[in-house]
Amino acid sequence: MTASAKRFAIGIDFGTNSVRALVVDVADGSEVAAHVSDYRSGEAGVLLSPNDPNLARQNPADYIDGFCSSVRRAVASAKRKRGFQVERVIGIGIDTTGSTPIPVDRDGTPLGLHSNFRRELAAQAWLWKDHTAHAEAAEITAKAAGHSDGYLAKCGGVYSSEWYWSKILHCKRSAPKVFAAAYSWVELADFMPAFITGNTDPHTLARGICAAGHKAMYHDSWGGLPSEKFLASLDPDLAVLRRRYAMPAVPADRKAGGLSAEVARKVGLPAGVAVAVGAFDAHMGAVGAGIKPGTLVKIIGTSTCDMMVAPMDQPLQDVPGLCGIVPGSVIPGMYGLEAGQSAVGDIFNWFAKQLAPQQYTIKGDPHTSLSRAAEKILPGASGLLALDWNNGNRTVLVDPRLTGLLVGQTLSTSAPEVYRALVEATAFGALTIINRLEEYGVPVKDVVNCGGIAEKNPFVMQIYADVCNRPMKISHSAQTCALGAAIFGAVAGGAYRSVESAQRKMVRSPRKVYRPRKAAATAYAELYGLYKQLHDTFGTAGHAQALGHVMKSLIAIRDRTRKG
Amino acid sequence: MTASAKRFAIGIDFGTNSVRALVVDVADGSEVAAHVSDYRSGEAGVLLSPNDPNLARQNPADYIDGFCSSVRRAVASAKRKRGFQVERVIGIGIDTTGSTPIPVDRDGTPLGLHSNFRRELAAQAWLWKDHTAHAEAAEITAKAAGHSDGYLAKCGGVYSSEWYWSKILHCKRSAPKVFAAAYSWVELADFMPAFITGNTDPHTLARGICAAGHKAMYHDSWGGLPSEKFLASLDPDLAVLRRRYAMPAVPADRKAGGLSAEVARKVGLPAGVAVAVGAFDAHMGAVGAGIKPGTLVKIIGTSTCDMMVAPMDQPLQDVPGLCGIVPGSVIPGMYGLEAGQSAVGDIFNWFAKQLAPQQYTIKGDPHTSLSRAAEKILPGASGLLALDWNNGNRTVLVDPRLTGLLVGQTLSTSAPEVYRALVEATAFGALTIINRLEEYGVPVKDVVNCGGIAEKNPFVMQIYADVCNRPMKISHSAQTCALGAAIFGAVAGGAYRSVESAQRKMVRSPRKVYRPRKAAATAYAELYGLYKQLHDTFGTAGHAQALGHVMKSLIAIRDRTRKG
Repeated sequence: MTASAKRFAIGIDFGTNSVRALVVDVADGSEVAAHVSDYRSGEAGVLLSPNDPNLARQNPADYIDGFCSSVRRAVASAKRKRGFQVERVIGIGIDTTGSTPIPVDRDGTPLGLHSNFRRELAAQAWLWKDHTAHAEAAEITAKAAGHSDGYLAKCGGVYSSEWYWSKILHCKRSAPKVFAAAYSWVELADFMPAFITGNTDPHTLARGICAAGHKAMYHDSWGGLPSEKFLASLDPDLAVLRRRYAMPAVPADRKAGGLSAEVARKVGLPAGVAVAVGAFDAHMGAVGAGIKPGTLVKIIGTSTCDMMVAPMDQPLQDVPGLCGIVPGSVIPGMYGLEAGQSAVGDIFNWFAKQLAPQQYTIKGDPHTSLSRAAEKILPGASGLLALDWNNGNRTVLVDPRLTGLLVGQTLSTSAPEVYRALVEATAFGALTIINRLEEYGVPVKDVVNCGGIAEKNPFVMQIYADVCNRPMKISHSAQTCALGAAIFGAVAGGAYRSVESAQRKMVRSPRKVYRPRKAAATAYAELYGLYKQLHDTFGTAGHAQALGHVMKSLIAIRDRTRKG
Repeated sequence: MTASAKRFAIGIDFGTNSVRALVVDVADGSEVAAHVSDYRSGEAGVLLSPNDPNLARQNPADYIDGFCSSVRRAVASAKRKRGFQVERVIGIGIDTTGSTPIPVDRDGTPLGLHSNFRRELAAQAWLWKDHTAHAEAAEITAKAAGHSDGYLAKCGGVYSSEWYWSKILHCKRSAPKVFAAAYSWVELADFMPAFITGNTDPHTLARGICAAGHKAMYHDSWGGLPSEKFLASLDPDLAVLRRRYAMPAVPADRKAGGLSAEVARKVGLPAGVAVAVGAFDAHMGAVGAGIKPGTLVKIIGTSTCDMMVAPMDQPLQDVPGLCGIVPGSVIPGMYGLEAGQSAVGDIFNWFAKQLAPQQYTIKGDPHTSLSRAAEKILPGASGLLALDWNNGNRTVLVDPRLTGLLVGQTLSTSAPEVYRALVEATAFGALTIINRLEEYGVPVKDVVNCGGIAEKNPFVMQIYADVCNRPMKISHSAQTCALGAAIFGAVAGGAYRSVESAQRKMVRSPRKVYRPRKAAATAYAELYGLYKQLHDTFGTAGHAQALGHVMKSLIAIRDRTRKG
């Protein structure tokens, strides 16, 4: 193919702290240019409240500014590469965090951009990890549990405080003025394509099946969103919101529209470039990592998303505790299965920031020095065991009101030992998800990992391989989410007829494989048994268990390990 | 009384890291001079093993050197005071840590002083907090539990790994050459009076009732030490050791002998000064703090000892989980009751050393900066709850193979919050002891605290008052152990006819009282309920309990507290 015949797609990935734009060659997925823009508001882009550790919001202006600056700079950088021309950009795909609903006015403008709401936390975007709506989540779960349509079967039996309706209902109750001013609520994944294509009208902007299905209880079997009657039973105003929501929701290989002239000018692209319907980062990341039936894709960063797809021509039972099973949410024509851990890197960051002593923090990255010390510790040798619930548990317990636990401390327990125990705890959490999938008939033949921790942290990934007793593959691209978004851009732009055919060309084989070590796997199998007992006893109601053996077992394992 | 008529006693307190000599006026207990000598070996006086966190030994030479240097300097310093003359010193009392048995040769010389054993850890003193003998403790407990003499009834139902026979039996099994070379084993509390009076013969040196009764299973009702038959059932060599142990054991108001000419010369005192029989630091400390029926004396330092006395003319049932109930071990003629927590200050020190970030450690004492931040946190506001078992649990579970636990961590949990949770955990442990005493008919009318933490840490003591919902009194003297030892020296030297009459003159009323604050006490009552559930579930075998509510209750308390 001559240089002039090359075609390009741009994937844009809205993360928790920054937005990344990636320009790729649609022929082989190779990366041409990229740029990352940090959000400017709050603490690393997140608006916090000193009074409520559950609160996490974002300034919608950061999304718009971040889009413009990251795309403009990525395009400018691509222009310096041989063979790139802005006229050869055929499609744009967008992924975002979620559920991150934004209250908007009649025109679809985020309320947070209005001068009178600028300082009002409830008027901003409600970031995925905001847990203020736990009471509303419990209420929705209770109401939906008794409903004949089985609204909860597709989302693991529990509706989360992180999700669309919980947050909206909590806004109504905690910030009624903001709620009254909101004409509609739009997921960030839908808002950005709407904004850059110039159609933000809540009634007509494309609502993606990914956000709708996983977070807004959308399912064809009950006619899209939950019925007005059901929503009204929660609050009459929710039924009104249903009428302002474009249905049917659409998959992300569809075109949301063409890039508006105004935005095109700002970012240095031609107007009219195809923009795909948006989806969540994990879902597009899974595509960028090469998801297919039998392959679990784990995106490991501050939290994890664990994604699988299953063919729709075979029966699939509901899996208790999964965040969602949604037709077409990952790859059109397949069930998309989503699971996840509420905090992974966030737990390591918490420890490094709050509890790591000077010797590990004074020079360079504390994670480097903590990992270096922690990787010398044999599995079981610290006598410690932790639960990975500092930010609640998403899968399989679906309960944000869980917290961390550490057991086994002595008077000589060291910071690297605790750090390692926390890493192991997240690995035990990962194994719990794999086990649950397989118990319910979804075989996990292969695990492909991506995201910051998978890319950069061999210490963590080796522990994952040992704990799960499976090879842990690392995706070829370091930017799977943005690559996945670019794949959807390429399909929406007509370069491929399907996501699968685009994947075959644009996703390369794993860059690295961590293999389980036998002795470690054996030790971890024993520790996992104890983890599971703590998990079930602290994580479920009414599960009485004798735990008098836990500390003694940990000591026995420790003593055995130390003696070699 | 004219200056020339003044009389003086010297109390010598062998602690974990140093030895203190205190010269007092026997008329009113006022302090004339004092000197502290640090032990020179190991880490702050403790010999450790990198392979076994349970091991803690001490070099016997440190005791002898420490005695000579502290007494010599205290006497030298006293000589500069008006009215002091060395000829007016009438008695010396000695208290030490324990159970700290020392293997000695036929002459009573510690094996650790022999050149061929100098580097052998098993030949040194086995410090009280050495937990290497947990297997032997379990074995002794199992054997004694079935014994018709009820050997365990006086020590709470469980024989500890910290105690005399456990350590000796572990030496036989782990270091048989040392065991074979040891003619006898002498408690540090008995060794020091023996050494300074020049009679170290194991067959005749005075064995104190305090060490014997609390740690060597000595009781008049079964004829002193356990029978040869019972000891032989553990190991035939233990029966041999019984024959080399002077019985009956004697209380500490008796004279062990007169100061030997050789030692007298070294320390600058006249030969022949009366030396009282030794006892443990906590027991003499309790006397120095004014113990009497109804008054609980808590000595709070790296660990705690909790002491009470009860009249022998009233019936006293056995109290499960107490370390010991021994006639005459504290005050001759009364039952001495001993309880304790295996680690208190040690837990705070562990946290400050291993897990406190730079901002709290870079300037001055980390405890000061951590306490300053932690005292601003309201009870319950952190959402954290801890168990205080980093060094096992002495009372009421009597189990060294327990470890720490922390629950309730979120992604914003801070170091001062954890520090406060650890302080609270030790207070909950203290309350558990008080409750146990009262449940078994030993009323606690008054609590007098002494020791380093009681002296220096208002933050900790206020939490103790709030958690226990009782006034916490602080003893007048900052050196209660050494003062208590001096009181025994005064009695042995003939200044008083009884310990009680000496106390009436030499112990003054509390220096300070911390009173419970109502709101804090209410919050802690709720948290204590959760602590007790964790305590019972993790601390006892076969106690099945549902714990799914624990994290949620902590969150509910946290949210309620933060909202005010």
